[in-house]
Amino acid sequence: MFNFKYQNTTKLIFGKDKIKELSQEIPINSRILVLYGGGSIKKNGVYDSVKETLKDYTIFEFGGIEANPGYETLMKAVEIVKKEKIDFLLAVGGGSVLDGTKFVAIAPFSEGDPWDFLTGKASPQKALPIGSIMTLPATGSESNSGAVITRYETKDKLFFISNLVFPRFAILEPEITYSLPQNQTINGIVDAFVHIMEQYLTFNVNSPVQDGFSETLLKTLIDSAPKILKNPKDYDTRANIMFSATLALNGLIGIGVPQDWTTHMIGHEITARHGLDHAITLAIILPAVMKIRRKQKREKLIQYAKNVWNIQENNEEKLIDLVIEKTENFFQSLGIKTYLSDYNIKENDINEILKKLEEHGMTALGENKDITIDISKEILKTALSK
Amino acid sequence: MFNFKYQNTTKLIFGKDKIKELSQEIPINSRILVLYGGGSIKKNGVYDSVKETLKDYTIFEFGGIEANPGYETLMKAVEIVKKEKIDFLLAVGGGSVLDGTKFVAIAPFSEGDPWDFLTGKASPQKALPIGSIMTLPATGSESNSGAVITRYETKDKLFFISNLVFPRFAILEPEITYSLPQNQTINGIVDAFVHIMEQYLTFNVNSPVQDGFSETLLKTLIDSAPKILKNPKDYDTRANIMFSATLALNGLIGIGVPQDWTTHMIGHEITARHGLDHAITLAIILPAVMKIRRKQKREKLIQYAKNVWNIQENNEEKLIDLVIEKTENFFQSLGIKTYLSDYNIKENDINEILKKLEEHGMTALGENKDITIDISKEILKTALSK
Repeated sequence: MFNFKYQNTTKLIFGKDKIKELSQEIPINSRILVLYGGGSIKKNGVYDSVKETLKDYTIFEFGGIEANPGYETLMKAVEIVKKEKIDFLLAVGGGSVLDGTKFVAIAPFSEGDPWDFLTGKASPQKALPIGSIMTLPATGSESNSGAVITRYETKDKLFFISNLVFPRFAILEPEITYSLPQNQTINGIVDAFVHIMEQYLTFNVNSPVQDGFSETLLKTLIDSAPKILKNPKDYDTRANIMFSATLALNGLIGIGVPQDWTTHMIGHEITARHGLDHAITLAIILPAVMKIRRKQKREKLIQYAKNVWNIQENNEEKLIDLVIEKTENFFQSLGIKTYLSDYNIKENDINEILKKLEEHGMTALGENKDITIDISKEILKTALSK
Repeated sequence: MFNFKYQNTTKLIFGKDKIKELSQEIPINSRILVLYGGGSIKKNGVYDSVKETLKDYTIFEFGGIEANPGYETLMKAVEIVKKEKIDFLLAVGGGSVLDGTKFVAIAPFSEGDPWDFLTGKASPQKALPIGSIMTLPATGSESNSGAVITRYETKDKLFFISNLVFPRFAILEPEITYSLPQNQTINGIVDAFVHIMEQYLTFNVNSPVQDGFSETLLKTLIDSAPKILKNPKDYDTRANIMFSATLALNGLIGIGVPQDWTTHMIGHEITARHGLDHAITLAIILPAVMKIRRKQKREKLIQYAKNVWNIQENNEEKLIDLVIEKTENFFQSLGIKTYLSDYNIKENDINEILKKLEEHGMTALGENKDITIDISKEILKTALSK
């Protein structure tokens, strides 16, 4: 196991009727900005519950944060924060709203362009406190310190990490997710699944605890996915998916072990350029990474095949073939097409994606920092079609 | 899954050469009381490392905290805290030192007798900040909010829980544990093992994440125990045991699921009255609880047999017999005798133990609160001999 430091200060408030407890978590004299997305919270009752619970507070609102939260949009929220002297941010939504809120929390304290926090030119020194009501289990952003922001003008999708933006609390009500559109439920499962894989499918450092936790979460998502497609109001399954998505990226399973994140970095460029859903890019790129890095990831691929998919096969090469196929089939069973060509992305689009990867410094990806632009090219070519 | 709230604010600092980083974690103008136990830290070099790292601080010392930290002893540390205006407590040792330090953190702010925090007559309102260097993986106390304190005068062993006593940080250096006496290593493994079982072996609430995490930790301890007895300086195995012990009782695996704690409550009374090591009482009582509650715990016993011990047996009654035997054999393989009679505790000692249980309000134990004094009596009788 590698050395590590780990601290996650977010309070999880999980279960039925938890929005009611919101007012126990926010100081009564706060000036709150409630941030949300496209308005689904107005349909599923969450918006009304929040307003009712916080009726004694001074509240402002900012809706319209897009699926890939945009710098341009968020800077408008930053203006409200400054103008209205907001001192508490309440994110109500999925990972995009959470990520966007994290940017809004640090941007007012920027000395230059807040985009510098994304490019690494500046690092956050101060942040507004954040609370969250997570409505779409996927990113784990409700209890971690990272955020991914898109600058649409330049087609850049970048991330920042800062301990200052750990939400103070995350309210997780599985019942809220009953009304999610099926594709959002699926995207959430795939996103969480690939978060786990990025921290698991690397090389062995004798870490049975982290490995076993990752395998548990992967198996839970694999078991839960078909159940929830069949019965969207299965409370236990919704709860297990929600809990798994939080644990997939709250830092725990990744401490003391190598991490990859190649799939995410390449996926971000595809979303920024071609607009594909984040989860779909992951379902396309992960199998291609497994194929191109099967030698480097050999030991873990075999472990994954046996412990997660319970595949009985003595020939190890065949075992690896089978588990890559299983992984693709899993995504396909959820209705996701897993090749770039399915989305009309062609070989001659690859160079533009690679150019952006290079521009963003993604020239040494992977757990061994040996995935060069050339290897990313191989991965993208492999992802083109079956 | 049940509703839950979970927050664990302790920063884990894990790996090689971490004591050096101590000064990054404690404000420079602090007046620190360093608390420790019987002096093993003076033999293994930890004491010197701490002194060297904190040479620019104002430091006081309090040694001699016993294996079951005693109210009488700890009150002497409380006097030093008051007299020397201590504002930071640094616990250096195992769970006993940690637990004792937690009591010292709250006792100075007590309005009456600080023992009231143990009996539940009073609840802590304020605490000194605590930091910890964990030298004996076992109790998880380095990153949780509980403590068990013994009052020798009255033979009472009681616990308190308060969010105020979460250590600010826990430094975990697996190499420190190389020099542990073998019986302490073993006791630590058994203690952590039974902590997991108390949160796992209950009834099913459809919680595959918590169950899988518990099973991972149990399997890691089972695999690690013989390895570390053979090679006490196996870094990875020491690290995996240490990490497992922390996760066994940092709250995570127990959120949203029923918990038992019968074994601990009965075990505490045996230690208080007869002086047996805490872990030994657990190794005696757990198998007896499994035998007496095999009907109530049936489903989880079967799951435990299959998922943790990988026992192949179609007859479920036989399967349960086998897994109880496996559990006893595991403790015995570590050199622990698992019956009361092995320690000269006889049938006519049971009534005194039951009297203390009753006195401490332990009249409805277990995940269903249905383990009455009569059932505790059955458990103790079953634990007498094979």
